[in-house]
Amino acid sequence: MTPTRTELLTGSVAAAGLTALVVSDRANVAWLTGFTGTAGTVVVTGAGTPTGTTLVIDGRYPLQAARQAPDVELVVDRSTPTAVAAVLARGLRAGTGSARGTTGTPAAVRVGVETHVLTVDAHAALAAAIRQALPGTELVGAGRLVERLRRVKDSEELAAVGRACAVSVAALEALVTGSAGPLAGRTEREVVRELDALLVAGGADAPAFDTIVAAGPNSASPHHDATDRPLSPGDLVVVDFGARVDGYCADMTRTLFVAGPDGATAAPWQPELHALVARANAAGRAAVVAGAGVAAVDAAARDLIVAAGHGPDFAHGLGHGVGRDVHEDPLLQAAAAGNLAAGEVVTIEPGVYLAGRGGVRIEDTVIVRDGGLGPGVLTASVRDLVAVA
Amino acid sequence: MTPTRTELLTGSVAAAGLTALVVSDRANVAWLTGFTGTAGTVVVTGAGTPTGTTLVIDGRYPLQAARQAPDVELVVDRSTPTAVAAVLARGLRAGTGSARGTTGTPAAVRVGVETHVLTVDAHAALAAAIRQALPGTELVGAGRLVERLRRVKDSEELAAVGRACAVSVAALEALVTGSAGPLAGRTEREVVRELDALLVAGGADAPAFDTIVAAGPNSASPHHDATDRPLSPGDLVVVDFGARVDGYCADMTRTLFVAGPDGATAAPWQPELHALVARANAAGRAAVVAGAGVAAVDAAARDLIVAAGHGPDFAHGLGHGVGRDVHEDPLLQAAAAGNLAAGEVVTIEPGVYLAGRGGVRIEDTVIVRDGGLGPGVLTASVRDLVAVA
Repeated sequence: MTPTRTELLTGSVAAAGLTALVVSDRANVAWLTGFTGTAGTVVVTGAGTPTGTTLVIDGRYPLQAARQAPDVELVVDRSTPTAVAAVLARGLRAGTGSARGTTGTPAAVRVGVETHVLTVDAHAALAAAIRQALPGTELVGAGRLVERLRRVKDSEELAAVGRACAVSVAALEALVTGSAGPLAGRTEREVVRELDALLVAGGADAPAFDTIVAAGPNSASPHHDATDRPLSPGDLVVVDFGARVDGYCADMTRTLFVAGPDGATAAPWQPELHALVARANAAGRAAVVAGAGVAAVDAAARDLIVAAGHGPDFAHGLGHGVGRDVHEDPLLQAAAAGNLAAGEVVTIEPGVYLAGRGGVRIEDTVIVRDGGLGPGVLTASVRDLVAVA
Repeated sequence: MTPTRTELLTGSVAAAGLTALVVSDRANVAWLTGFTGTAGTVVVTGAGTPTGTTLVIDGRYPLQAARQAPDVELVVDRSTPTAVAAVLARGLRAGTGSARGTTGTPAAVRVGVETHVLTVDAHAALAAAIRQALPGTELVGAGRLVERLRRVKDSEELAAVGRACAVSVAALEALVTGSAGPLAGRTEREVVRELDALLVAGGADAPAFDTIVAAGPNSASPHHDATDRPLSPGDLVVVDFGARVDGYCADMTRTLFVAGPDGATAAPWQPELHALVARANAAGRAAVVAGAGVAAVDAAARDLIVAAGHGPDFAHGLGHGVGRDVHEDPLLQAAAAGNLAAGEVVTIEPGVYLAGRGGVRIEDTVIVRDGGLGPGVLTASVRDLVAVA
């Protein structure tokens, strides 16, 4: 039988030499338990409850938690630190499994906490409560234990990301085919609103992140907050967006050319830049296969851009994992270590940005597979420099 | 001349006995500088640059930051900790104003950081970089210095919150008057999508938070993630939502009754509960005036609910500040200290939640004024138990 997520995590906790783990990250909590509220903490002791895990929530969430996480023991308390400490104490008294040292002899109590998530103040409050309930306990930064387990998606998760990507592709097609009329003359903000509305109308729970529509010189900003600049004939327009469906994100980018009603033609540098980035996107996708080094995938795309003399104009990593968070492990960056594994979902998003002129980014969300991508590209749709009216 | 936000903050920094301050919270950074990107850090030294402040960003944001924060010195760097430390060192070498002790003699260097925002890991990285650049520097939790200044809104901010509230009121009216047909039979999620679309169509940049539509027994969850439950005749439906406009949030709640196409009538407890909460909402609003204690405002509404025997069923505070964040200072809670000040924006949102049956919440966003609310209610719209088809 496939181990449950909790069983996988209990194994990770023991392997890390931890007695117990306190999970505070919202996406980690949702992945472990199904609970999607804004505030919840999972305590993993391996003992003290049927699954060895407990979900601590506040008074706003008992009904939602019972519905979403029916298999997890719930503790409702106004004070998270106190409740977490009490749950830890109970689990450690129950004292089997990962609640003891793996040799069976009582070991030093080392409780892992998510120091990359907890604020300094929240950590201090938790440490004080745990010191009081369990004198002598050591709090240890547990690193990204849960995030590492979240990297490889199961079939339900892959299906959800796939639905999110399908909704995204359809929304962009609807935008570009222009049922609402020409894009030229509409402001970046207006286009953001229309695309967001198309995402939601198409089945998204919400946009997965703040939609980027960056026109003309603004397209040279890799991240751009939409302005009241109208899309104008001759503009490159970077559109970076994605749907969230059933808690999972899509992330894709296409770059359009605004021909406008009179059919402006592009300056030579615009299709040239676009073709370069499209080649880099294709090379990046071609390099995605289980076992490939993340730095090598980055290099597969980056080398083309560097060879064209635009290395300094591609000032971000090639991509990142996508799942419950729009930015997850692994990072595909030149300086990153590690390899891709089958079932991971990553973006491939090379971009070249020329200050004062404009930029191009082309991004896909893909599933890492054994033997290469094949049907693993979830955002398959036109990648040409589409001209819009 | 009215002091600038930076000048106000420089005063707060000196008054707190700090040599400098590192601002990491995204809304605080946006309030201070105008920059709305996802990652930016403001270093306040009172010296070393024309305004005594510097905005540290990464390579994704130079164009956006230059546009949004033209008056602030920018530093672009891949490593925030290293760059912040270098800016601090430069500012402290420049060495006037708040960069020295207020007596003019060199004082111990105490750099304030936002320990309620920084993660443990980010704090550790910053501390290491500062120790290296400025040996002997003490890092100090600065508390909510910027948040305290953000409590009182200026006229532009009040106008933005007002626009966000107006968009929200109009969206709910459009939903209830039902241009898209009867609500009965549509799922919670579908209603969330329609309301979100109405917000955006009406001028919102985006919903300010995840819209809550909680029908029937689900309305007994103060915070509820929308499900596929259809709105059904006889349901109470809590609708909690708000627009974000120009970076500022609205927050309002109304509770509807689903009569459905056949005109189901409410059970007696439903209008009774609604009337109780409406009275509490009115009493809470009536208590909002500059100088009122936040606990007293909470009590003005809560006492009515307690007297009706529903004290335990109102398990959250009466309200909270609203601005760039949907939840800001001040908190209106029984155990909270402090008083309201003119120009603050707060919610008044009593609720009663009966497990297994349903709940009612009625929430307004209001401006605190001298002499009482008057036109300070920004979400003025029908508060009756409106029956929808």
